[in-house]
Amino acid sequence: MNSIQDKDYVCLDDFQKSANERLQSSSFNYFADGCNEQFTLKENREAFKRYRLRPKLLRDVSNIDLSTTILGERISWPVCLSPTAIQRLADYDEGEVATARAAASVGSVMTLSCLSTRTIEEVAAVTPRGVRWMQVQFFKSRQQLENLIKRAEKAGYTALVVTVDQPVRGHKYKSTTDYNASLLTFTGHAKPVNVDLSDGEVDFDNSATWHDIKWLKSFTKLPLVLKGITTGDQAKNAVECGADAILVSNHGGRQLDYLPATIDALPEVVAAVKGSGVEVYMDGGVRHGTDVFKALARGARAVFIGRPIIWGLSCKGYEGAKQVLDILKDEVEKTMALIGCRNVNEIEPSMVVHQDYYRQQAL
Amino acid sequence: MNSIQDKDYVCLDDFQKSANERLQSSSFNYFADGCNEQFTLKENREAFKRYRLRPKLLRDVSNIDLSTTILGERISWPVCLSPTAIQRLADYDEGEVATARAAASVGSVMTLSCLSTRTIEEVAAVTPRGVRWMQVQFFKSRQQLENLIKRAEKAGYTALVVTVDQPVRGHKYKSTTDYNASLLTFTGHAKPVNVDLSDGEVDFDNSATWHDIKWLKSFTKLPLVLKGITTGDQAKNAVECGADAILVSNHGGRQLDYLPATIDALPEVVAAVKGSGVEVYMDGGVRHGTDVFKALARGARAVFIGRPIIWGLSCKGYEGAKQVLDILKDEVEKTMALIGCRNVNEIEPSMVVHQDYYRQQAL
Amino acid sequence: MNSIQDKDYVCLDDFQKSANERLQSSSFNYFADGCNEQFTLKENREAFKRYRLRPKLLRDVSNIDLSTTILGERISWPVCLSPTAIQRLADYDEGEVATARAAASVGSVMTLSCLSTRTIEEVAAVTPRGVRWMQVQFFKSRQQLENLIKRAEKAGYTALVVTVDQPVRGHKYKSTTDYNASLLTFTGHAKPVNVDLSDGEVDFDNSATWHDIKWLKSFTKLPLVLKGITTGDQAKNAVECGADAILVSNHGGRQLDYLPATIDALPEVVAAVKGSGVEVYMDGGVRHGTDVFKALARGARAVFIGRPIIWGLSCKGYEGAKQVLDILKDEVEKTMALIGCRNVNEIEPSMVVHQDYYRQQAL
Amino acid sequence: MNSIQDKDYVCLDDFQKSANERLQSSSFNYFADGCNEQFTLKENREAFKRYRLRPKLLRDVSNIDLSTTILGERISWPVCLSPTAIQRLADYDEGEVATARAAASVGSVMTLSCLSTRTIEEVAAVTPRGVRWMQVQFFKSRQQLENLIKRAEKAGYTALVVTVDQPVRGHKYKSTTDYNASLLTFTGHAKPVNVDLSDGEVDFDNSATWHDIKWLKSFTKLPLVLKGITTGDQAKNAVECGADAILVSNHGGRQLDYLPATIDALPEVVAAVKGSGVEVYMDGGVRHGTDVFKALARGARAVFIGRPIIWGLSCKGYEGAKQVLDILKDEVEKTMALIGCRNVNEIEPSMVVHQDYYRQQAL
Repeated sequence: MNSIQDKDYVCLDDFQKSANERLQSSSFNYFADGCNEQFTLKENREAFKRYRLRPKLLRDVSNIDLSTTILGERISWPVCLSPTAIQRLADYDEGEVATARAAASVGSVMTLSCLSTRTIEEVAAVTPRGVRWMQVQFFKSRQQLENLIKRAEKAGYTALVVTVDQPVRGHKYKSTTDYNASLLTFTGHAKPVNVDLSDGEVDFDNSATWHDIKWLKSFTKLPLVLKGITTGDQAKNAVECGADAILVSNHGGRQLDYLPATIDALPEVVAAVKGSGVEVYMDGGVRHGTDVFKALARGARAVFIGRPIIWGLSCKGYEGAKQVLDILKDEVEKTMALIGCRNVNEIEPSMVVHQDYYRQQAL
Repeated sequence: MNSIQDKDYVCLDDFQKSANERLQSSSFNYFADGCNEQFTLKENREAFKRYRLRPKLLRDVSNIDLSTTILGERISWPVCLSPTAIQRLADYDEGEVATARAAASVGSVMTLSCLSTRTIEEVAAVTPRGVRWMQVQFFKSRQQLENLIKRAEKAGYTALVVTVDQPVRGHKYKSTTDYNASLLTFTGHAKPVNVDLSDGEVDFDNSATWHDIKWLKSFTKLPLVLKGITTGDQAKNAVECGADAILVSNHGGRQLDYLPATIDALPEVVAAVKGSGVEVYMDGGVRHGTDVFKALARGARAVFIGRPIIWGLSCKGYEGAKQVLDILKDEVEKTMALIGCRNVNEIEPSMVVHQDYYRQQAL
Repeated sequence: MNSIQDKDYVCLDDFQKSANERLQSSSFNYFADGCNEQFTLKENREAFKRYRLRPKLLRDVSNIDLSTTILGERISWPVCLSPTAIQRLADYDEGEVATARAAASVGSVMTLSCLSTRTIEEVAAVTPRGVRWMQVQFFKSRQQLENLIKRAEKAGYTALVVTVDQPVRGHKYKSTTDYNASLLTFTGHAKPVNVDLSDGEVDFDNSATWHDIKWLKSFTKLPLVLKGITTGDQAKNAVECGADAILVSNHGGRQLDYLPATIDALPEVVAAVKGSGVEVYMDGGVRHGTDVFKALARGARAVFIGRPIIWGLSCKGYEGAKQVLDILKDEVEKTMALIGCRNVNEIEPSMVVHQDYYRQQAL
Repeated sequence: MNSIQDKDYVCLDDFQKSANERLQSSSFNYFADGCNEQFTLKENREAFKRYRLRPKLLRDVSNIDLSTTILGERISWPVCLSPTAIQRLADYDEGEVATARAAASVGSVMTLSCLSTRTIEEVAAVTPRGVRWMQVQFFKSRQQLENLIKRAEKAGYTALVVTVDQPVRGHKYKSTTDYNASLLTFTGHAKPVNVDLSDGEVDFDNSATWHDIKWLKSFTKLPLVLKGITTGDQAKNAVECGADAILVSNHGGRQLDYLPATIDALPEVVAAVKGSGVEVYMDGGVRHGTDVFKALARGARAVFIGRPIIWGLSCKGYEGAKQVLDILKDEVEKTMALIGCRNVNEIEPSMVVHQDYYRQQAL
């Protein structure tokens, strides 16, 4: 590793820029693009910019403790990894194995996509002590899902992340000159290894309902994290069906354009599940320490990131993924210090306000 | 038809880009431009972007039924064709005949402009079973109007779309280096064939009033669709004068700049006619499946499109127009699935909110 | 005059573009620039774009009568000319004489700047039947002001437009690479001919107060139009001091940056003088027929334009100034027809709403 | 000094442009950049643009008196200098000595950074009659701080500006291709001369608390100005701990991104300390006379500027710094005249409104 070059990666966006130069455009676009007009993709970022910070000054911040628990397990900081598919497209050599190692090295939760290019067992083998969650969704073949869960249980994965916002795949537009994203097939080293694909395509079950969540709950002892909820009423459904946690997500803007930004939708979900014991997380557009802080202040117990890890992998494999996490952790710590929070319990909702707070004061 | 090339048309905007390369600039601009500063033209699109979607998840969406009825006739999906003039400027060979065929092929309503370049009868002949509506407006010669209606009735058109926002033609600015839109005369193959023009210009009757609507109502048994209403009070006038439906429209931003975007104006019209049995539709800026969904959730019974069909025609005649409709239909279906609606009756107003919904929650 | 070339001037902005090519940059910038960051200059235009139109349809608009009265005198339409200085910089041959002829030809009020490059009497001589107003302001030498007024009275000017927002000249920034606007001296053919200048600079009296308005009122029988008011409380002062009319103006964004746009400030002034009989006009950013309509609907009795006339003069002297007015008049007439107003009395406040009207409805 | 060239510096931004050409990019960026996404850096400017001015007209403004008092000392105008570090990076020859001379020449307060490149005593020597304040912050070595204060007291500095928003240094991103701002070390002529640095880095004490403010208060007789407060509750803490004044500041957008713009945050602080006798100032984005006026109208007793002085220094040393202040003073005076204020006591809160004031009126 070239230390001079490393200094060039100062923030998470640096990795994206570099990945854009290193990856084939079809691969880069597969990961980078949102669906349709890419409105929600951009909105995830824009929405963060509408919130302002209100620090407590002159507190002794010589010791910042970022650790927290998530579904009862202790993690070093409240940032975890969202599941992203076919990571060997970004890092041919290691793929999800590199990601898991990076996550474990900084005490984050690794979430393995069911469309991963390394096996459930391979990933477990390299991070025996890391916290690993398994992402699943409903396939036309229920047998496939059952197999995945059994293997995940056996390999020591401690939660199931159930994707609930993808009965069908979203449309993609932008990159039509480069590739037709809607027709992308998973082949070669980009072929998922844990599931059977018919003709390189994924057979999602578009008839799954909340009853299937209840069935899942009865099928496995693993806690269920429902991923893809953005409204309070769906969150209430999740609670009623036995969900243990909700990951507020718009699928990184890849499924349904004009879903709200997750930082905007988050508090409604938090309010809806209040008192139920269900934990709430979010992903979508998190790129800076201030983003993480804003999400926590607005009620998330943890924040998940997806694409930045892919860009880290694309640039430097394991080292890149780890560097992404190291940089972000450093930023979160610095943000905590500058706002006067020594640990996550000291984060107060009033430390983050919408920009219109100041407009209202001015009228 | 080149199937590789076809894959290049992934969304409706692709057709506009391609049409811009294929058509003479004066022809392209004739269709593309709005009036004056083109504010309303752009606002029609921008306004859609201000609405957010709130899905119901985990519903069985394995069967999506998009069909609905419009003035009592069943159509395959709630997207119909707005009248656009002189279509042989876009497709010399077939013009409106190609459009009507495309509409019929996907179960949409074809609305023939009274300034069409194919006759009322030609269009009827090629789509005997398609739903066809006839657009008319008040000419200085009332005789012309009567003739048009009689021919339309005879040819099996099942409704009259009456343009009410064009007592005079709007100003156009932008394309003055290419052509003077205000002076455009309809000549050659771009000459309307169903009406007599004096000196290539249309003689609109700028003295027509609501009494003329009542006269129309008495003159024909065909239901009347008033096109060009954007306020509640004018909608009430329409109801009082016997209109059967209202097409909320700002004439695609071509008549009076700074009219509101139709998606913004729509609910006021819906509220104004509530309980009257009058149906409300809208056109203006619809380019994506999410746009259609937003319009339906905000109260439109059907959505009309204009320019996209012209771009389809310009690129590939009938095939292009059909492909535009096929793509949009697929997008509507996918949007329905992702929001959890199996048919149009399951679309709820609360599934679409203004972006400020989230701002208000944050204060 | 080349008729083909004339077709190239389709809207008022076309004249500005052409003037930019024809004038020396220092001259163009003198007229075009606003002060400091040019915020208010741009805001005058941007503000108009925030208002939407709500037409009445199906009215007999075969006869549009734009005429109105202003301070008791009938004019052909409610658009008049704001005073602009040293017009021979734009049209060496005729300057203000061309402007006055153009104004008279379309039945507008000509307002002559006290810093004009043609004499009060020359302008009167060419437009004996035109409505002419004289702009004045307080000079260090009160004698100069008295002389101006006496000459204006004698030459048949029928009102005094008193500039009240210029105790000192505003800063200009932008064009410092071209010229130093703050140091511009009036020399050569750009030298005002009706006033004495010391060292080519204007000696404004920065000690003038409302008492001086009362003195003016007692000194002359001409009605007083106070130009430069943008708040209700200053408007009330004007009424108390005997003003006959108020011209809501931010000096075209040339004096104090961050004054509000005049279309925004207008209603507050209208409300403040209600019942007093004092007329309210506005200038600032008027470029389209819809702008004129919006100002009238929001309470202006007449609208004044400044720079567009300069651009017309710069392009084609009298013909250009006249063409600017002809185009705008045609646009006003068309706007009236499309909104369903046959005369200015039919313009209703509810025909113009702020864009947030629709946002509020959506919540 | 070339007088022709001098005319090229017409506003403060001209100095920044010129400095960008004259300084090494690493030096320019050190001064110019904000932290992270540079949001707050830009927001400081954007926020000013959201406020509108409401003048009183026709007041005798022939004599404008800008003088005021600050912590009991009379200054010629309410604009002072924020502390900025290592000024010999901008002006090798004189650095802070030039700045102090410029401040004294126009009757501003000079605030010397504890990270200055000229000694406390050198600066005092050249401006024996100027008002000088000393900026300090908490170092790991309390001894260093005590020494600084004693020297400042002895050298006739009349207040301590205590930076309270920098327990750790903020992240910088933008200029990573030029230099790594987070790793910038203070070496050579850019080495602070009043403090000891370990390895060229500053050892801030990240364990300082409000108790340390009380200790400071007991340690010195100098009044304390707490710099870096942006919320009302922290302002109340400051009052309780004996602060004499608060400098509302977000550290020029260099410490914690997404702090609010200071012009937005100011009134909340003013309201929080009301009745306490504690003075409130602000810095951040002040570039124009209208900015100064807006800050005063919204409750600041004085306004501080930082970067513009650096740009003046970079262009022309003392002459440049002085010219920056001369230009701004002239602009403040002109703004006062145009709004009708003869002295700071005549500035009324109602003379500045948020832009939404007009939006609300329009609904």
